Amino acid sequence: MKNCVIAQSGGPTSVINASVMGLLKKNNEISYFDIVYAGINGIEGILNEDFFDLGQLSDEEIETIRYTPSAALGSCRYKLKNYEDSKEEYRKLFEIFRKHDIKAFFYAGGNDSQDTVRKLAAYAKEHEIDMNFIGIPKTVDNDLQVIDHAPGFGSAARYIATSVLESYLDSMVYTNNGVFITETMGRDAGWLAASGALATYNGRRCADIILLPEVPFDEEKFLQRVEEIYKEKNHVYIVASEGVRLKDGSFLAATKAHAHDSFGHAQLGGAGNALKNIIVSAGVTSRVKVLELSTLQRSAFHLASEVDLLEAFRLGERALLMAKDGETGKVSILVRKSDEPYEVEYTSTDASSIANHVKYMPLDMVTEDGMNITEEALKYFRPLTGKLPEYRVIHHFHEK
Amino acid sequence: MKNCVIAQSGGPTSVINASVMGLLKKNNEISYFDIVYAGINGIEGILNEDFFDLGQLSDEEIETIRYTPSAALGSCRYKLKNYEDSKEEYRKLFEIFRKHDIKAFFYAGGNDSQDTVRKLAAYAKEHEIDMNFIGIPKTVDNDLQVIDHAPGFGSAARYIATSVLESYLDSMVYTNNGVFITETMGRDAGWLAASGALATYNGRRCADIILLPEVPFDEEKFLQRVEEIYKEKNHVYIVASEGVRLKDGSFLAATKAHAHDSFGHAQLGGAGNALKNIIVSAGVTSRVKVLELSTLQRSAFHLASEVDLLEAFRLGERALLMAKDGETGKVSILVRKSDEPYEVEYTSTDASSIANHVKYMPLDMVTEDGMNITEEALKYFRPLTGKLPEYRVIHHFHEK
Repeated sequence: MKNCVIAQSGGPTSVINASVMGLLKKNNEISYFDIVYAGINGIEGILNEDFFDLGQLSDEEIETIRYTPSAALGSCRYKLKNYEDSKEEYRKLFEIFRKHDIKAFFYAGGNDSQDTVRKLAAYAKEHEIDMNFIGIPKTVDNDLQVIDHAPGFGSAARYIATSVLESYLDSMVYTNNGVFITETMGRDAGWLAASGALATYNGRRCADIILLPEVPFDEEKFLQRVEEIYKEKNHVYIVASEGVRLKDGSFLAATKAHAHDSFGHAQLGGAGNALKNIIVSAGVTSRVKVLELSTLQRSAFHLASEVDLLEAFRLGERALLMAKDGETGKVSILVRKSDEPYEVEYTSTDASSIANHVKYMPLDMVTEDGMNITEEALKYFRPLTGKLPEYRVIHHFHEK
Repeated sequence: MKNCVIAQSGGPTSVINASVMGLLKKNNEISYFDIVYAGINGIEGILNEDFFDLGQLSDEEIETIRYTPSAALGSCRYKLKNYEDSKEEYRKLFEIFRKHDIKAFFYAGGNDSQDTVRKLAAYAKEHEIDMNFIGIPKTVDNDLQVIDHAPGFGSAARYIATSVLESYLDSMVYTNNGVFITETMGRDAGWLAASGALATYNGRRCADIILLPEVPFDEEKFLQRVEEIYKEKNHVYIVASEGVRLKDGSFLAATKAHAHDSFGHAQLGGAGNALKNIIVSAGVTSRVKVLELSTLQRSAFHLASEVDLLEAFRLGERALLMAKDGETGKVSILVRKSDEPYEVEYTSTDASSIANHVKYMPLDMVTEDGMNITEEALKYFRPLTGKLPEYRVIHHFHEK
């Protein structure tokens, strides 16, 4: 018997299941492995021998799971330690692999997962175990190195841009509007917040201000800009990453949100509520609404991007072929050949080049004042989300 | 010249523009009025003679606006006073109507707007002014009397049910899950929160608990149920209306959310955060996430319900015909003939029967423990949202 196991790790996305089904369908086609097992709840479940034979799935079930958000195999927050610190665990894991005739392990996840791939491949090599360890990338945050963009990001960006557009139209219907703040995920990198710049209405950006973790938050400059825009339009729309930071690297959410909370309950206030406090305290207006997109941005499949779905599927297919070709300690990735027409090439890279790195937004994508995204930069984002809705309102004609 | 004006009032919805375009297209077809004006920003804008001739719109623009969320004509929070308290305003308003040869006024809005229709119709009758005042209903809250359901509700319910389903799948991927709370709009009536019951996965409801303003919140019973479910499944999904109240009628959000906030900043915490405080304080688990759907539930057009869109359009068409037939002080409404197959009849009712009333959830729609919706009641909801996505995950098979 020659079997394999595939597992998912970290936060869910809208397309991580497409990757798993891509791998499964490719194996059904070429019958390379006898059994493709799902490892339930990532490495944590594998250590408990919690396997599910994916060969049981009908074609219809495969198609349904392919188009299901979140982690269909279950996920885990478990980070595999170094071999030196966890010898017993490695021994147990490889014993389970041997027991089930598992010759390849596929791990779909972010940079922690790719680190697991790297460690296991190194262990196998050192112990002369003939197994392939292959990573399949995913993360809505888009903070993976080497790969052009992480599967899951395009769908999350589409959800964010659409939600920015629709909440923008909602927030500007009165003669006396206020400030609307949408908070996105992205603790370290600003890719998700930046995708709010894709939302346009009547050819203009909806988001007046976009705040990223990569640009240190300057309260004075920020307030000045908010007041300026508010005076001009009676309405300000802000997109802020949860990871907005001060110059000293501390999170804005941690320092400002519980300024008014004697018990220090920071969980009540993220970056959005911190910005609200700043704006209200400065007396700009008391009419400030905060929208936290929360987990919907990573699992709202109904707005999944077609490109994202297809790419995730292909990266899964390709991971299988990589194992067949004898690769190990590698990640199935894509690189971009062209923005327009959009074209990518599927290839692979060392897991070590992705593991434990973070891909930040390059500062040349940010406008000079540090509070928005350049038009040029949007060429990177547009093909990933696909077309956004086009709306029209009338009272806008009357806007000063 | 025989002109008319149509205006929008109150909070936006996904389909209020469809009503306006329904009226406009019907007039383009039968050429009853010479000009259909939009009153920009409701009665507030009309008092400033802020009109827009809708005849300027191309067919393509009409179609785009029909499928645009929020209030395309702008809205207002302005409540027209009684004639006795505001004679000068009434005089001015009717002078503006006369000046622009306006023979009919259409107001799309909730029960405040229908109250305006009632007042203006009564004034016109008393002063022998030959004008028609017709209301077009809308409100995501679905708290309007007489009409089977309010346009805007079906789309909001579809957004909520889809978001409950997708965030449910996201919230249960780990072996150690927690409590997930989704907060919906609905300050007085629980229709929106109740629509979370439509979200099903593998034939079971996603929402374990649904809390409505109509059922007084019983902290002890609530905690007992949460602990029970948490023990059984390691995961609890709660949908709560923003209007959840205690026995004495006070809002849960107002009493519990700032229990920990010495400055009393109630705006930080709605009902969802109040429930989180209760669960965490009781020591059930500290893993509690809150999702506030905020304004997206009323303006996320990308999930608008087809039935809702069509009905809103037809109610607009019919409002025009009502004016042509000489009706005044009336509202264009629909009543339900059958759940399955779904069938409605378009008719009209006195504005006074809608104005200043609230349609609460009937308690026979609520399960005996007061914390969910009966299966029977869902027959009312299902035709309004249309079909929801069907998903499938594998780790669920392993759930105890």
